[in-house]
Amino acid sequence: MLDLAKLQNRHWTLAERPVAGVEDRHFRLETSPVPQPGEGEFVVRTLFLSLAPVMRRYMIDGAGIEPPMAIGDTMYGRGVGEVVASNNPDFAVGDCVHGKLGWQEFALTDGGEDKLMFKVSERGVPPYLFLGALGITGYSAYFGLLDISLPKAGETVLVSGAAGGVGSVVGPLAKLHGCRVIGIAGSDEKCALLTDRLRYDAAINYRGGNIEEAIGAAAPDGIDVFFDNVGGEILDAALIHLNRYARITSCGRISQYIDDDYALKNWALIGGNRAKLEGFFVYDYRDRFSEAERDLAKWHREGKLPVLVDIVEGLEAMPSALMRLYDGANVGKQVVKVADPLFLPKDAAAA
Amino acid sequence: MLDLAKLQNRHWTLAERPVAGVEDRHFRLETSPVPQPGEGEFVVRTLFLSLAPVMRRYMIDGAGIEPPMAIGDTMYGRGVGEVVASNNPDFAVGDCVHGKLGWQEFALTDGGEDKLMFKVSERGVPPYLFLGALGITGYSAYFGLLDISLPKAGETVLVSGAAGGVGSVVGPLAKLHGCRVIGIAGSDEKCALLTDRLRYDAAINYRGGNIEEAIGAAAPDGIDVFFDNVGGEILDAALIHLNRYARITSCGRISQYIDDDYALKNWALIGGNRAKLEGFFVYDYRDRFSEAERDLAKWHREGKLPVLVDIVEGLEAMPSALMRLYDGANVGKQVVKVADPLFLPKDAAAA
Repeated sequence: MLDLAKLQNRHWTLAERPVAGVEDRHFRLETSPVPQPGEGEFVVRTLFLSLAPVMRRYMIDGAGIEPPMAIGDTMYGRGVGEVVASNNPDFAVGDCVHGKLGWQEFALTDGGEDKLMFKVSERGVPPYLFLGALGITGYSAYFGLLDISLPKAGETVLVSGAAGGVGSVVGPLAKLHGCRVIGIAGSDEKCALLTDRLRYDAAINYRGGNIEEAIGAAAPDGIDVFFDNVGGEILDAALIHLNRYARITSCGRISQYIDDDYALKNWALIGGNRAKLEGFFVYDYRDRFSEAERDLAKWHREGKLPVLVDIVEGLEAMPSALMRLYDGANVGKQVVKVADPLFLPKDAAAA
Repeated sequence: MLDLAKLQNRHWTLAERPVAGVEDRHFRLETSPVPQPGEGEFVVRTLFLSLAPVMRRYMIDGAGIEPPMAIGDTMYGRGVGEVVASNNPDFAVGDCVHGKLGWQEFALTDGGEDKLMFKVSERGVPPYLFLGALGITGYSAYFGLLDISLPKAGETVLVSGAAGGVGSVVGPLAKLHGCRVIGIAGSDEKCALLTDRLRYDAAINYRGGNIEEAIGAAAPDGIDVFFDNVGGEILDAALIHLNRYARITSCGRISQYIDDDYALKNWALIGGNRAKLEGFFVYDYRDRFSEAERDLAKWHREGKLPVLVDIVEGLEAMPSALMRLYDGANVGKQVVKVADPLFLPKDAAAA
């Protein structure tokens, strides 16, 4: 058993709010005692932390999802870890959980609704999967594709940000549903991963020339479903190839972190094609998370859901790992490894 | 009985395709013998013809709905009329029908699927209603609002082009469903009609100042449903006031006839608000037209669906009546009266 009183908790706090891009000086690494659990509380020792594009917005205004962060607050973020001390009957020492841990080595929590703490049932897989394909990221792909865009066998599905956390799950899911799947990513290396490892039928490097022509060439019969993680110019290019009754899932708009003034030229093609563009919020599907976890775990076991995880080592690398997202440097779900597990089976720890 | 052989059929043909706005020189009024019905055919004598913004697109490329029109073809258009000669067992002399009559005094048809010819069951109302609130225009409001935007009691509904054909039906429908309804129109006179006659709770003259501020003032709790007939700048202004989970029905994009290069600034707010923007095609609901006609006629009889019709007299006025739409001169559904009825009850003929 760990003696928490002898340990220190390293945690990243918000030092300054970003105006344009995220930089090192916006964060501060601090050290404090590891908290002891009070009545109904428990302590989670972080194994992996998740990085997501929305974090820049958390630093500014909470993104309309979280309460705005004060300067000096521990950075918001989700992670997966093991319970190492508990006064909560629902969470025992040795349980593996994922939820809002924050950017820190040890998180004190009461497991309340707002902490979105989920106990992991599958223990034979690497824990970082619960930050990617088998966690909220995977659920975003699952509900955003299957509930919003309703792909039918034989249809053409286009995915932007296809090598990112959500996109790397959307491709295999669309293949599972009998679709032809085209991914858009930002380098030839990523494009090769899409077709070689993530079951994509075709891949487009958006930095490789005229994106609109490339989509037309890859989707000569037009696009029935567009799962969009990017927005902006890529959305505009996709709209030109929209089929009638097409469904666009607007999952993310990472292009806005670079140019939030981008005006959409081809908006009228949505209505004109009797199509729809729809946003969603993964936590609205909370009552169905267990359905998603069950399906995704099953498909993963069957080898139909290959996963791509980009692991950076060490809590100290959190700011630079976040910046990788905005630079498009990550390939697959970006996570940071904080510690090796104490309780999980050894083979599950393998990266 | 009319002796068709002694009559002439005046009809408008396409003389030239518009590039920018529609002008008189794009049309030619021609005269030809009234056709005699062959086997399975019948002749409809036009009473009223409908004008719709889509007609400019018909003149250019068929709008992706109709086969492109050749120069010299009779202009496409819907109308309501009486059957005056018939060799078709389904359509008897004296029947009142609405469907694709074209811009002419007498239409020869076989009543085939593609003519979209509907027999009128309600005969005690003015026939032009079947081109407006009780016809395809009304069905567009009915399905576009109730099926796409799903308004709930207590919600705020914004309607652009509110004094136009579809918009003048959407307002009363939304009121019937317990919503607070705000209309946008292009003059103070139209705005007065919206609140005085069409049951709108508030009206905004988009030519009267800052449209975005005006929407904010009229909808302090934000917009849950936007029924958009206009697009462009008005859509952009509405997006700023979108509530979470808002539904936008993209019914028409008449702004594009003036500026089809308009790029949408606030597109990201659709996805960001977990909202949706969706187009539709009224003929996709064809199997449910009788449901819509029944409900709309009932609400009209009960005085809950006031109608606004803008009647211009005489077939010769067709081109200028069409141009009224693009100038925003029409108030309510724009129709042209071509002839007085022979068979319908006298009180039904009253404008």
